[in-house]
Amino acid sequence: MPDESTFQFEEREIGEVKDGEILLKTLYVSVDPYMRGRMREGKSYIEPFQLGKFIEGGSIGEVVESKSEQYKVGDVVIGGFGWQTYYKAGEKEVRKIDPALAPVSTHLGVLGMTGLTAYFGLLDIGKPKEGETVVISGAAGAVGSIVGQIAKIKGARVVGIAGSEEKISFLKDELNFDEVINYRTTEDMKAEIEKTCPNGVDVYFDNVGGEISDAIFTQLNRFARVPVCGAISAYNLEKADVGPRVQGFLIKNSVLMQGFTVGNYSDRFQEGAKHLAEWLQEGKVKYRETIREGFENIPDAFLDLFEGNNIGKLLVKVAERD
Amino acid sequence: MPDESTFQFEEREIGEVKDGEILLKTLYVSVDPYMRGRMREGKSYIEPFQLGKFIEGGSIGEVVESKSEQYKVGDVVIGGFGWQTYYKAGEKEVRKIDPALAPVSTHLGVLGMTGLTAYFGLLDIGKPKEGETVVISGAAGAVGSIVGQIAKIKGARVVGIAGSEEKISFLKDELNFDEVINYRTTEDMKAEIEKTCPNGVDVYFDNVGGEISDAIFTQLNRFARVPVCGAISAYNLEKADVGPRVQGFLIKNSVLMQGFTVGNYSDRFQEGAKHLAEWLQEGKVKYRETIREGFENIPDAFLDLFEGNNIGKLLVKVAERD
Repeated sequence: MPDESTFQFEEREIGEVKDGEILLKTLYVSVDPYMRGRMREGKSYIEPFQLGKFIEGGSIGEVVESKSEQYKVGDVVIGGFGWQTYYKAGEKEVRKIDPALAPVSTHLGVLGMTGLTAYFGLLDIGKPKEGETVVISGAAGAVGSIVGQIAKIKGARVVGIAGSEEKISFLKDELNFDEVINYRTTEDMKAEIEKTCPNGVDVYFDNVGGEISDAIFTQLNRFARVPVCGAISAYNLEKADVGPRVQGFLIKNSVLMQGFTVGNYSDRFQEGAKHLAEWLQEGKVKYRETIREGFENIPDAFLDLFEGNNIGKLLVKVAERD
Repeated sequence: MPDESTFQFEEREIGEVKDGEILLKTLYVSVDPYMRGRMREGKSYIEPFQLGKFIEGGSIGEVVESKSEQYKVGDVVIGGFGWQTYYKAGEKEVRKIDPALAPVSTHLGVLGMTGLTAYFGLLDIGKPKEGETVVISGAAGAVGSIVGQIAKIKGARVVGIAGSEEKISFLKDELNFDEVINYRTTEDMKAEIEKTCPNGVDVYFDNVGGEISDAIFTQLNRFARVPVCGAISAYNLEKADVGPRVQGFLIKNSVLMQGFTVGNYSDRFQEGAKHLAEWLQEGKVKYRETIREGFENIPDAFLDLFEGNNIGKLLVKVAERD
């Protein structure tokens, strides 16, 4: 388990802004569970973080100095410049966003990677049909809360799994989930899934892995689909992550299980972002952000992800726009 | 674990052959691992066997009496009439096969359900591309031995896993597998897969589940595909089948894992059978049968499946053609 000692604050010289470069002041920093995977050695879909280098990740910044014809002071941009207060960027390292479309922070959430993760995982792998039952673990999180709303748009019955009364009322009352299970107070998850999903489970959007997923595997319908998005229950385990093997469940009901990362769909980001923006404007998709303040609180916010206390997208606000 | 006492031989009256019916004499009976699943209560993709009723399954018979215009005495047919010496069938319960095309027994193997299982599992889910590495567990079995040969036809590098020297020489020398691992003499399966698959594993055709599959999951490439066909290692377990959870492996490399049964592809059987028959005639697909003799030996043959001693399709010959 990482803790405050995992991170170190350092001041470094940025150097002169040269032709074709821009200087960014960071406004918002994203903290995401996948970052935990980069704090470990070994091959994965993304390189480990380098010791002594800044933590990369999604951030939003404002141009405060520009020697590029493409950007002017005051432009708001998004990029992978991560946990830094200022960053000197090349023209192609970042992309402009439109502050008139929606609050700029949404480009790190519902209109950004987490929204796109929900969109492609659910629609490309889960493929919910009208009247089917979609179960989502980590349902009140940045991805899960969007998944459930897209599933509702597609006419599915949506059952969420979350860990607090506050999350449950958010999902039921604000997002209109059909049922929400509190996994912290549920003793027999299998029985609870049976009760809340009387027609079985057609799509299980897996954000957590572990025992919650084990229970849902027993309730899958024939030709069920399982987009595997995250396994937050396992990210900080010191021992092996062991549970019932899935092969029997997959064969019995011809189930499809597919791991993915949003980067697989980079050539379709525009399509996804367009739909998400429309749904947002139409009020069909709502979002919640938990915004912490202050650059110095980034490590603490990151660690909070594994406590499961946040609703929606967790961000840190580093500075105000000028 | 089933044993001889699980089964009982009984004589019953067949009754008169009525208009539109035929009387069949059974020639060959198929014994298959999936039948184990039907000897257990509980919902699966196929109903459990009924106590006191004959064991259903693939069989080949000869028409010895006909009151149907569609069949004449001497015709050879295939159907699901299972473990019976004689059977009185309706016209639509069985289907004629052509004894001139290939030995009639092949319709229970390479040209029948096991060949079609290999064909659709590999090509529809595994989708091997030229130069990719395909690993097959249970490689010398009825399904696995065909999977490997189809993968070779598609230009893949094929690595089989089997449990005896006889099987290994069959796969290497007769079927031209590129590498074969003897799992019974291999101490570190993960290291052995690494050695025999220096470019990683693109397709893993899983017939066995258990620890062999656990090891292969660690060696999967990005966008690998895992058709899950069987889990013979788990069929007779009394305790829960427990091992490393797969979610982490699936996410890390965007892996697809899909359970299936051949029945999912029933509307494409003709396509599959046509290709298999062509490959057989061209000598691109070879097959091996292990044929036991005598109706009384069916239970024993079935139990042998779980000992892993057979090569290719296991059949019982019940009677000669007239």
